[in-house]
Amino acid sequence: MALWSGRFDQETDEELKKFTESISYDKRLYRYDIAGSCAHVNMLAAQGIVPEKTAGAIVGELKRIEQRIADGDFTFTAELEDIHMHIEHELIKALGDEGARLHSARSRNDQVALDIRLYLRDEIDAIADMLRNLQKTIVDLANKYRTAILPGFTHLQHAQPVLFAHHLLAYVEMFNRDFTRLQDCRQRFNVMPLGSSALAGTTLPIDRDAVCRELKFDDISRNSMDAVSDRDFIIELLSALAIFAMHVSRMSEDLILWSSREFDFIELGDAFCTGSSLMPQKKNPDIAELSRGKAARVYGALVALLTLCKGLPMTYNRDLQEDKEPVFDAIDTVKKILRVYPPMLASMAVKQEKMLAAANDPELMATDLAEALVEIGVPFRNAHHRVGAFVKWCKQHNKQLCDTTLEEMRQTIPEATPAFLEMFSPSKSVEKRETPGGTGPQSVDKQIRFWQKNLSL
Amino acid sequence: MALWSGRFDQETDEELKKFTESISYDKRLYRYDIAGSCAHVNMLAAQGIVPEKTAGAIVGELKRIEQRIADGDFTFTAELEDIHMHIEHELIKALGDEGARLHSARSRNDQVALDIRLYLRDEIDAIADMLRNLQKTIVDLANKYRTAILPGFTHLQHAQPVLFAHHLLAYVEMFNRDFTRLQDCRQRFNVMPLGSSALAGTTLPIDRDAVCRELKFDDISRNSMDAVSDRDFIIELLSALAIFAMHVSRMSEDLILWSSREFDFIELGDAFCTGSSLMPQKKNPDIAELSRGKAARVYGALVALLTLCKGLPMTYNRDLQEDKEPVFDAIDTVKKILRVYPPMLASMAVKQEKMLAAANDPELMATDLAEALVEIGVPFRNAHHRVGAFVKWCKQHNKQLCDTTLEEMRQTIPEATPAFLEMFSPSKSVEKRETPGGTGPQSVDKQIRFWQKNLSL
Amino acid sequence: MALWSGRFDQETDEELKKFTESISYDKRLYRYDIAGSCAHVNMLAAQGIVPEKTAGAIVGELKRIEQRIADGDFTFTAELEDIHMHIEHELIKALGDEGARLHSARSRNDQVALDIRLYLRDEIDAIADMLRNLQKTIVDLANKYRTAILPGFTHLQHAQPVLFAHHLLAYVEMFNRDFTRLQDCRQRFNVMPLGSSALAGTTLPIDRDAVCRELKFDDISRNSMDAVSDRDFIIELLSALAIFAMHVSRMSEDLILWSSREFDFIELGDAFCTGSSLMPQKKNPDIAELSRGKAARVYGALVALLTLCKGLPMTYNRDLQEDKEPVFDAIDTVKKILRVYPPMLASMAVKQEKMLAAANDPELMATDLAEALVEIGVPFRNAHHRVGAFVKWCKQHNKQLCDTTLEEMRQTIPEATPAFLEMFSPSKSVEKRETPGGTGPQSVDKQIRFWQKNLSL
Amino acid sequence: MALWSGRFDQETDEELKKFTESISYDKRLYRYDIAGSCAHVNMLAAQGIVPEKTAGAIVGELKRIEQRIADGDFTFTAELEDIHMHIEHELIKALGDEGARLHSARSRNDQVALDIRLYLRDEIDAIADMLRNLQKTIVDLANKYRTAILPGFTHLQHAQPVLFAHHLLAYVEMFNRDFTRLQDCRQRFNVMPLGSSALAGTTLPIDRDAVCRELKFDDISRNSMDAVSDRDFIIELLSALAIFAMHVSRMSEDLILWSSREFDFIELGDAFCTGSSLMPQKKNPDIAELSRGKAARVYGALVALLTLCKGLPMTYNRDLQEDKEPVFDAIDTVKKILRVYPPMLASMAVKQEKMLAAANDPELMATDLAEALVEIGVPFRNAHHRVGAFVKWCKQHNKQLCDTTLEEMRQTIPEATPAFLEMFSPSKSVEKRETPGGTGPQSVDKQIRFWQKNLSL
Repeated sequence: MALWSGRFDQETDEELKKFTESISYDKRLYRYDIAGSCAHVNMLAAQGIVPEKTAGAIVGELKRIEQRIADGDFTFTAELEDIHMHIEHELIKALGDEGARLHSARSRNDQVALDIRLYLRDEIDAIADMLRNLQKTIVDLANKYRTAILPGFTHLQHAQPVLFAHHLLAYVEMFNRDFTRLQDCRQRFNVMPLGSSALAGTTLPIDRDAVCRELKFDDISRNSMDAVSDRDFIIELLSALAIFAMHVSRMSEDLILWSSREFDFIELGDAFCTGSSLMPQKKNPDIAELSRGKAARVYGALVALLTLCKGLPMTYNRDLQEDKEPVFDAIDTVKKILRVYPPMLASMAVKQEKMLAAANDPELMATDLAEALVEIGVPFRNAHHRVGAFVKWCKQHNKQLCDTTLEEMRQTIPEATPAFLEMFSPSKSVEKRETPGGTGPQSVDKQIRFWQKNLSL
Repeated sequence: MALWSGRFDQETDEELKKFTESISYDKRLYRYDIAGSCAHVNMLAAQGIVPEKTAGAIVGELKRIEQRIADGDFTFTAELEDIHMHIEHELIKALGDEGARLHSARSRNDQVALDIRLYLRDEIDAIADMLRNLQKTIVDLANKYRTAILPGFTHLQHAQPVLFAHHLLAYVEMFNRDFTRLQDCRQRFNVMPLGSSALAGTTLPIDRDAVCRELKFDDISRNSMDAVSDRDFIIELLSALAIFAMHVSRMSEDLILWSSREFDFIELGDAFCTGSSLMPQKKNPDIAELSRGKAARVYGALVALLTLCKGLPMTYNRDLQEDKEPVFDAIDTVKKILRVYPPMLASMAVKQEKMLAAANDPELMATDLAEALVEIGVPFRNAHHRVGAFVKWCKQHNKQLCDTTLEEMRQTIPEATPAFLEMFSPSKSVEKRETPGGTGPQSVDKQIRFWQKNLSL
Repeated sequence: MALWSGRFDQETDEELKKFTESISYDKRLYRYDIAGSCAHVNMLAAQGIVPEKTAGAIVGELKRIEQRIADGDFTFTAELEDIHMHIEHELIKALGDEGARLHSARSRNDQVALDIRLYLRDEIDAIADMLRNLQKTIVDLANKYRTAILPGFTHLQHAQPVLFAHHLLAYVEMFNRDFTRLQDCRQRFNVMPLGSSALAGTTLPIDRDAVCRELKFDDISRNSMDAVSDRDFIIELLSALAIFAMHVSRMSEDLILWSSREFDFIELGDAFCTGSSLMPQKKNPDIAELSRGKAARVYGALVALLTLCKGLPMTYNRDLQEDKEPVFDAIDTVKKILRVYPPMLASMAVKQEKMLAAANDPELMATDLAEALVEIGVPFRNAHHRVGAFVKWCKQHNKQLCDTTLEEMRQTIPEATPAFLEMFSPSKSVEKRETPGGTGPQSVDKQIRFWQKNLSL
Repeated sequence: MALWSGRFDQETDEELKKFTESISYDKRLYRYDIAGSCAHVNMLAAQGIVPEKTAGAIVGELKRIEQRIADGDFTFTAELEDIHMHIEHELIKALGDEGARLHSARSRNDQVALDIRLYLRDEIDAIADMLRNLQKTIVDLANKYRTAILPGFTHLQHAQPVLFAHHLLAYVEMFNRDFTRLQDCRQRFNVMPLGSSALAGTTLPIDRDAVCRELKFDDISRNSMDAVSDRDFIIELLSALAIFAMHVSRMSEDLILWSSREFDFIELGDAFCTGSSLMPQKKNPDIAELSRGKAARVYGALVALLTLCKGLPMTYNRDLQEDKEPVFDAIDTVKKILRVYPPMLASMAVKQEKMLAAANDPELMATDLAEALVEIGVPFRNAHHRVGAFVKWCKQHNKQLCDTTLEEMRQTIPEATPAFLEMFSPSKSVEKRETPGGTGPQSVDKQIRFWQKNLSL
């Protein structure tokens, strides 16, 4: 018994509709589809392709449909495949033959290329605002904890003391690059594809520049075949979002580490942690963990789009319908993160004494000794070796670096001066790093003011 | 004005719930969660950890809850996070303190590890059946078009004539490997994790083997920490599904090529094609295109899971909650493809004359000439060179290979016999390839019978 | 017997060196490492951190080392791990203590961040030039075959006739976006990281702006912790290269299709095809196939870098050493493609008659009929239905669209005029699509001139 | 000036060779190519297709070539493209026409399908042995540190005390699944493709079963078209290796955390750490970091192969040449990790007091209290709430859980008995978890003995 033997039946029909429909997810484009149709029909009227009166009626009805969809007063059905067909069908139902004039000089190929650009433009603007808000939150924290010092890590090992504010501002830099990548992407794709029709342009006397102006694009697309088959901008956007998600995964890792009993540098607000169904004492940094994990789906979306487009011949292929769900999911994911991250950060209690205690490890000042030797003329490599030997000596004699006498220090660092004995303070170490971009208080202050100004705090 | 300034408020609360909840997608696990709970509480009773009567009441109520969810008579809310909490909450609402005994000796960590395994076991079985059905459909087609010949392609260039049935059966082989990969995956993960509790096992005197037997697992997990942090099996499954999706993308590519005006080897049923919103004459192989495109999201899901698990410390981390949506989507996608592919293939009209005409190109028999030379003792490389020279000679003299005289042929192939002139027939060429696995009619017949038997057609 | 039992031995030592060394691949950075060191030591001298004379000696010796490496007169060894240590080691060997002064106020963390930026800047410039050359080659072809017409495809089905030049220019658009993405990436990362030292900046009085100017960066990095842990720019670059590789995979797919016996639109030069070890008659488009396939490794490199950075805590972690091989491979791959693609395209014989014959299918003009009806006032949807009915009528009566009489046409298209009978010519169809971006000869001519000017042909 | 203007020249020729050659990497297959050729020619002789004497001469010469390649006494050149052509060319150079008989009834398509399988079979066996060795090393460690206790983590928060041995054995489980995945993969692809020829089989009377037996395959491939286009097994292998690399990334994360100053649970041997070029005091766990990072390239290789195969039509396409470098790199990477990981683990100093001190946190025993309540009849959810209230009470009164009196405890846990006051010992907590798979000493002992037996320690 083969399931599909004989003529295929009702059930298959149903399956086929489910397989090909996109209305279940592309309905979110409705506003943009309608905005595009309004601009299109206004242009058709101005060009004499449809009567002015018809255009007026169509625009009016489209606005009504938009309102109905916004109000939840509109029925979607897999029968009508996609958002374009739903709206046009409703229009024709309302206006009859007059409604049937809308789709002149247009194909769903260029229509969807328009809709998705309009949609992504808005989403990028929304995400950019949220990114700015995230940056502001972090700058506020940096400003609030200006004097807190913690160990800076490389290889997850203590390296040198740094200002907590400096550490925080590193993330502001990352998110700023994310912001600029979004702007570049937006600018590159802000090009109006309508008028490309199915692939070859149209024989009707349209005015693409008029539509371009009405919809606030920077330019019209130059080649109709490219315009209907191009999905570069989705890949580029997903790549920018993937890098952002990677940054979030890194910051989350820091937050999770700092929240551990072992580090104990911070405590996230109760609202951003959850308990255990079994262990009554647990307080887990779930929001940070989920945020770290969500990089996974954004990466997945990027790979999906790259895979989708690989090896497709020109021009439009139905495969391209699969472009939407991944990018919708990535956008939703990024926005979700951007909604919870700022309040989570703001909820953070900073345990400054714990941080300082961790930084108050004389070994972290070893580099300062080496650089002090350079200042008095010892070649750096030699200075490095001497301080290395000093660290080893202390280990062997079971002493802290700061507990040695000058004589002891001079056994390995003959050039040591009494000033060397004063170097084992995290705050002094930090204060000496005032070159631009360094962790010195003035340098960090300058960074904070730069960002306050740039983000208009 | 910072969106999140001050204490975070109602809106944030809402966002947080949306961020952490999984009920919107893990509710599909409800049957498995209940089956697991029933087995668990039966064991608790048998071990004297809960009274027999309590266990009976819990099982009864769980069945009622299951029925209500199946009937759509159950309200889900982000408040209660996940399917586990929903069901336990409802149970306690109904049974009070008796219901509160269920979660003894269990954590959500091992509970979800159990649920997902039970769920995937069922889904793998369903997909395996559908794969078998797809194979049957293809074998039926191969059997139906036993004598059809088309050009076999390498590099999308004509290579040698092959039986259409032989080409089709190549896909049966691929889908068979997919089938066996699913079986291996299922067998490897069919191990019972319950009793691992949060990560360390439990202090209560449970009987894991009893639960194992009731839920039809092959064995119990050997290490509790591994059991709650292992998501290997999801990655392995996604990898098997990704390979299947790749196979579908290849078969779809063939179908799309064959449906083109240029190839014109087949015509897919109208129901599996769609028209154009602009071009009235179009008949597009949309189902095949979408099927090809859907490889993208399955690949994306695989990358998502690999990314998710990378670098996580032991044991359970909340990131792992993100394991479900990608695998659910991949499973749904694969099942959708498996529902439409068999009827689409069955709908295919095969244009045997067109295929044969394309295969009836004397150049495709060039290899046969070379092998005939080998049979009479010419070293293969020399034979290959001679036939190459013959092909070139024909090109230069603007002749088809089959239109030469013996004398002409002997200018480049001195050993040619009159039999060589008879070699330019696709059917003769095919008939000579009867070694096992070759495209000869008897060899292909043997393959067909092998699959008919194996698939119990 | 355990391989590693007891103390680990010589063999392990060897393995460890192999595991950690990067010299086998990072030696390609030598020029940039030396340029960075020269700028660094010049600044150190200007700031009085090292004597002028020492700086001069160091620069002189570094130039000698550069020349020796360029000449192949330099021995690399896993002992010395990476290119930085090789060069500094050689410097100290030559200059003794004076050489040991170079590494002052610097760490390998900021050093490699500098080197890789200098390197990528050069590679981007080289690739950008090659992209321009590829675009020129295509524009030349478009110009050469200005009048050739072929069927435009959607869904790999004939859609409407288009100019071959128009099809080609679509690829020029894609490659242009690739070009601009590279520029954006270059601009974003053209920021000078040196002076960030290990992670916190330095206590020595350096002048970062001087180094910035000498090495032609646009600005200095603002945050030292970010500067040593940032690998965004590699991911962004790989993403741009992946999109380019995707474009190449699509163009290659077109070329492979067109080279098939079935399409037979073009013939690639013999040098860009290969034969078969078995089948003497084969001519395979290997270069196009390999180019299509090479998208795979570029995608792989992108995924590798995204994976690498996921979840890393601040700041530098040794994992980041794994950033280089993927980006080196992607750059090499893209440059290889860019070297062979232009001459391959130039070698292409275009079979204009075959293309035109394929386009000369009256069904491809169906859209023109529908748009003609719109021009005389029929609402588009109605026009679309009428032409659809006409196509169906012709199929049923086994007639070509162009072979009907006006009466026959009017059975389904009552508004048809005698002009409708003249519409079934590919060249007329193309000529009517003169709106901007369309496939009309003047529109395409404008595109060609735009690109000739922009690419300074 | 266009780089490629005019006829393409010498330089292009060179580029083309570089573009298409595979000898630079496929030479590593030489042993397998020769083994396959020997089996092939022996069969040809047995079937009378080549003279016995010729076969003997060919086998002799092939062995000489193998020895020369092994000795480095063989020149490779891009002229001869790949390893197959190199060896056949050398053979013909030595034996003339007799050597030219080898390639009868064979194509490079089935030849490379054979070679890669033979190669991967050996590599899988080598990796499987190394995996076993890694498991043994870990079991040895578990055995050595049988009594060490550390906090078990979920969400990187202390959860419950566990035996260090139990934590280690979790990794043995993971690596065991990796081992079985490799076995499944090997078994699935251990099928002999030779005789498939280019794609259709051969007209010569070969004996595929003889070759199958000589080369120790389990079966012959059933369909020639599938056999030459199948690369499933490479993807499956890469997927198994990617999961292994993910496991390594997780274990490395643990090691890096444990090596941090904050955790301070272990110290890796000096040989497995490196210092800093700037900071004299640093000791970084570089090998663990690099091992974590190397997951990136294995994931990348998997994505590359999936991308490569997506959407390819049947049968062999030149794209498939790109299958080798990713899998070679992944294999080399995994073997490198497997060489350094066992001695790194063996070098680890375990700081048992530090571990125990961290585990000696009364909150970690909260679950034990709750389960004790269940044992005396309190429903679990109520027990959980009571213990939660107790934890809160202690926080508010700034007391450790273990420092309360029975009266204090009874304020929130009315059922508490004096025995409850004795529960705050990590070792007692561990000892109570003796259900199978739990962290109890006997349970862990059983696991150790299981693995010792299974791994024949």
